[in-house]
Amino acid sequence: MIDHTILRPLATRDDILRACDEAAQRHFASVCIFPCWVGTAARALQESDVKVCTVISFPFGADTRSAKVFAIRNAIANGAKEVDMVMNLSKFKSGDFDGVSRDISESVDAITSTAGLHDSRRVLLKVIIETGVLSDSEKEVASRIVRDAGADFIKTSTGTGCGGAVADDIRLIRRAIGPTTMGVKASGGIKTVEQAVTLLNAGANRIGTSAGVTIFDSYDANAGLA
Amino acid sequence: MIDHTILRPLATRDDILRACDEAAQRHFASVCIFPCWVGTAARALQESDVKVCTVISFPFGADTRSAKVFAIRNAIANGAKEVDMVMNLSKFKSGDFDGVSRDISESVDAITSTAGLHDSRRVLLKVIIETGVLSDSEKEVASRIVRDAGADFIKTSTGTGCGGAVADDIRLIRRAIGPTTMGVKASGGIKTVEQAVTLLNAGANRIGTSAGVTIFDSYDANAGLA
Repeated sequence: MIDHTILRPLATRDDILRACDEAAQRHFASVCIFPCWVGTAARALQESDVKVCTVISFPFGADTRSAKVFAIRNAIANGAKEVDMVMNLSKFKSGDFDGVSRDISESVDAITSTAGLHDSRRVLLKVIIETGVLSDSEKEVASRIVRDAGADFIKTSTGTGCGGAVADDIRLIRRAIGPTTMGVKASGGIKTVEQAVTLLNAGANRIGTSAGVTIFDSYDANAGLA
Repeated sequence: MIDHTILRPLATRDDILRACDEAAQRHFASVCIFPCWVGTAARALQESDVKVCTVISFPFGADTRSAKVFAIRNAIANGAKEVDMVMNLSKFKSGDFDGVSRDISESVDAITSTAGLHDSRRVLLKVIIETGVLSDSEKEVASRIVRDAGADFIKTSTGTGCGGAVADDIRLIRRAIGPTTMGVKASGGIKTVEQAVTLLNAGANRIGTSAGVTIFDSYDANAGLA
């Protein structure tokens, strides 16, 4: 359930390839990397069960709708199987919920239209709502917008310094979206097995972290901790 | 010579419109805003002499070449007259100077090909090299790559927390690019008239700042300070 995340702006090609190796050895769900490395990672992971995940309009979500859709199509063409797109925070704070929603629904449409072109399995769309900059009621509104627009996951945070995943937010998001098959990805500041387990118990079903190796290896050494 | 910069991720539509008013009153060179607000700002500024500037692949530059080119074309179609694109820092640190260069030269080509479509005057391309994460020799290499790829300006910084404009860097960049009509935009952490004047004297010919109103108004009150 781990998205092995390498979003350091100065990470090199070697760092990306090392992360792919680490992920393949541990059968992580994905490596989560910047768009410019998707092709490189897809080639490195083609013999593995690890998917390539990338970020779109990261970390502010302040790109145009058409640029977001283009970036998603481009990432899929390069081998991405999951895309984590940042909600337009600036538009959300301006009260333009319709605009925020259309960004997502048109992204879903773009993904749906590529199904079968690159792989029979549909690419997953996660939408980052950046919980750290939202009030509780804004988190509820954002969660419902993401759900209703047809995304596959709500993701809590970019992890770029405005707060990370906390169990209360995971519970709040799960309450807001109600009974659903939708996923919730906890991300931002997750460094230990204990944190990961707490977030999974709160309702998350994916963990985005740059500490995946440490978490996985220490979990393995203490099997049964959860 | 001021780019009035509103790149707060949570800035609202009202903040953008206020910035446009402030810029029009003071005849700033441009307002520098996120791509999702370009159309709004272009409409607000259509009767003024202030240009709309936007940022591309901000703040990490880690998007694909085709996504950068698409975003530039899209911004121009929406009314942008200047685009500040972040150099791919991750590729640069990986030693892929050819890739970094081609991002820029293909962006120049995209801009050239739009000339006449939206306006007779060519859109300006500034490339942000993020001096705060580069060694002095890397700053030289980056500056020459940007010059040789045909951009109009080298811009020092994104202003997102990895250091800002300092006079030594402006001088270093000017030395690196040699005699040229190319511009140098100082940006990041510029809050006072004194800072702005120091950077202009060091060789900058554009100042990117969120404190443009304060700087302009205090300069005006002390005419002759420079």
